[in-house]
Amino acid sequence: MAEGPRLCDLGEWELIRRLGAFAPAGQFHDDAALVPLDAPVGATGSLVVNTDVLVEGIHFSEATTGPEDVGWRAAAANLSDLAAMGCTEVVGLTVGLVAPPQTPWQWVEGVYEGLGEALRRHGGVLLGGDCSSGSQRLLAITALGRLPGPQPPPGQSQGAIRRCDGRPGDVLVSTGPHGLSRLGLALLQNDPSLNAFEPDPDLRRRAIAAHRRPQPRLDVVKAVVACRPTGMPWRVGGCDSSDGLLAAVAAIARASGGSARLEGEELPLDPAMALLPQARSWCLGGGEDFELVLALEPTWANALIAALPTARAFGVLVATPAPETLIWSDGTPIETADLGFCHFSEPNGDGPRRNESQPTGRQ
Amino acid sequence: MAEGPRLCDLGEWELIRRLGAFAPAGQFHDDAALVPLDAPVGATGSLVVNTDVLVEGIHFSEATTGPEDVGWRAAAANLSDLAAMGCTEVVGLTVGLVAPPQTPWQWVEGVYEGLGEALRRHGGVLLGGDCSSGSQRLLAITALGRLPGPQPPPGQSQGAIRRCDGRPGDVLVSTGPHGLSRLGLALLQNDPSLNAFEPDPDLRRRAIAAHRRPQPRLDVVKAVVACRPTGMPWRVGGCDSSDGLLAAVAAIARASGGSARLEGEELPLDPAMALLPQARSWCLGGGEDFELVLALEPTWANALIAALPTARAFGVLVATPAPETLIWSDGTPIETADLGFCHFSEPNGDGPRRNESQPTGRQ
Repeated sequence: MAEGPRLCDLGEWELIRRLGAFAPAGQFHDDAALVPLDAPVGATGSLVVNTDVLVEGIHFSEATTGPEDVGWRAAAANLSDLAAMGCTEVVGLTVGLVAPPQTPWQWVEGVYEGLGEALRRHGGVLLGGDCSSGSQRLLAITALGRLPGPQPPPGQSQGAIRRCDGRPGDVLVSTGPHGLSRLGLALLQNDPSLNAFEPDPDLRRRAIAAHRRPQPRLDVVKAVVACRPTGMPWRVGGCDSSDGLLAAVAAIARASGGSARLEGEELPLDPAMALLPQARSWCLGGGEDFELVLALEPTWANALIAALPTARAFGVLVATPAPETLIWSDGTPIETADLGFCHFSEPNGDGPRRNESQPTGRQ
Repeated sequence: MAEGPRLCDLGEWELIRRLGAFAPAGQFHDDAALVPLDAPVGATGSLVVNTDVLVEGIHFSEATTGPEDVGWRAAAANLSDLAAMGCTEVVGLTVGLVAPPQTPWQWVEGVYEGLGEALRRHGGVLLGGDCSSGSQRLLAITALGRLPGPQPPPGQSQGAIRRCDGRPGDVLVSTGPHGLSRLGLALLQNDPSLNAFEPDPDLRRRAIAAHRRPQPRLDVVKAVVACRPTGMPWRVGGCDSSDGLLAAVAAIARASGGSARLEGEELPLDPAMALLPQARSWCLGGGEDFELVLALEPTWANALIAALPTARAFGVLVATPAPETLIWSDGTPIETADLGFCHFSEPNGDGPRRNESQPTGRQ
């Protein structure tokens, strides 16, 4: 065997950092890749390309997710990354399908039906793909979207959303509640940690829907465009919250060269989850809510919150490169350990790390 | 368990046919997907998108292929599909990487180095991707390329290459010899069926290079464009020969609504392989030579053969929808059984079907 670190020694982020060295500088810095089309074919916009891999037992499980939901979630996770870049128009996606030969056709059919439903709802078509046998079911999806241009002239209405485009003083806006998807997973798993918590039927329905049928927020981008204050140049920091709310905030703060100060009383919790002890932890780190987290100039942020009922301000970007990237508004650091999920990080060698707060389902 | 056929009951082609029902009509008919860019961003060309999945134990094996070669081959297979559509300009590719946590980083590094080498040689950049743990190493690659336009006005020089664009009377041109890659694999495996055949050092080197470092024929597209007879409209039938020479011919003939008549004495064999008993079978069905097979109007075909030393005419398309799609020039049908490789087709349930003529390595 070759010497040197194994993937489980590096962990996912170091692996991605190393892989980024093979790409143009900055190419791996956002949720998806921008492909300028202004040369040589004369286009004025960009194509946005995003690839996600979803593996059974890690990103989905037959116990909690039927094939249609697997397909929907796979498409939604990719389209959410397109929305996170500022796309409002989905071109389509390709699917690399791997499955053991014994896989029932009905499972595959269900997956593609779910994919198709998501595309009919949010735009785009299935463009193509490949399939192969393999020891494990998985989907490798590449989604393509269009963007008018990374930085259009003042007359144009829209540019890209980038993680690095936050600035000190920007208001952090969450486009919807966080923690619902994680609750939905716990309900589907009959998670004993729920104890005596008995969600009302409406919350149960919404939580399970959030887990099984997440909605990529392509609509949010339209709202951001529509409520830009007159004369204000396009500058929108942001990414999606597929890896959790805090992970999104940290990514924006780090890429923008600053810190984030969060208001503990203003977190985008779902009010119906208030009695659940895990509500706050799942809001911060549950993941897979597929909302957008945006850093906007205050007047723009206020206009968006007025226009989008689910949007909520929960903090600001600050200039000081604080020792901690994430702090509460009272100055105490925010504890982020145990909130993330890391592929390949797996001390005992028998599967990806899972814990109570991250049992499965990470995109 | 769900009732109904399993993937191993359907086989790869039927699976693809079924999956095609979820895409726009004709979307799965070529080697890659065309994305017209003329609306709404004002471009005049098309983007070409191709996804390939390569799974360890099926498409590559550590026994015969080091990580750099795995990466090169993965890129080359994708770029070959772009060339098969008429691309001369590669935009780049995304990589979905799956590997068990125990995988050495050095293996992954080698794979990406091989990918990078192929991109530096043939154009394009690594655009992004995703990675996940999984039980098996695999790469899901999506390549993007540009095309001036599916059917440009007469003043323009190029359109797409489509399988369906062959016409009766077209000459079938192979852009290079076939069977070398399969010989290279046999040499690397110390295949006992080689018996007393002892290739000279030059043939050994070329065969192993054909297997480990196949060259996508993006250069051929430039030659096809350059030698188009004056005034002749753009119409080029074709695809690549990744699945074997006969599979390529059959795909073109079927898509073009006709049959193909091949000259048994004009097959694109490598002369140095003449003494090898398997030479003819591996030329017809060995696969992975990644040449282009083109159907061209005779004067265009002659001009290409004059311009491209490795090109060779080996048959014609004929109008009669013969009972057999493939016939020899003396009228006898060409036997195609045992020449193809089929994912999921696997009667004994313990892995993909493999036989002496197709042990591994299919893209």
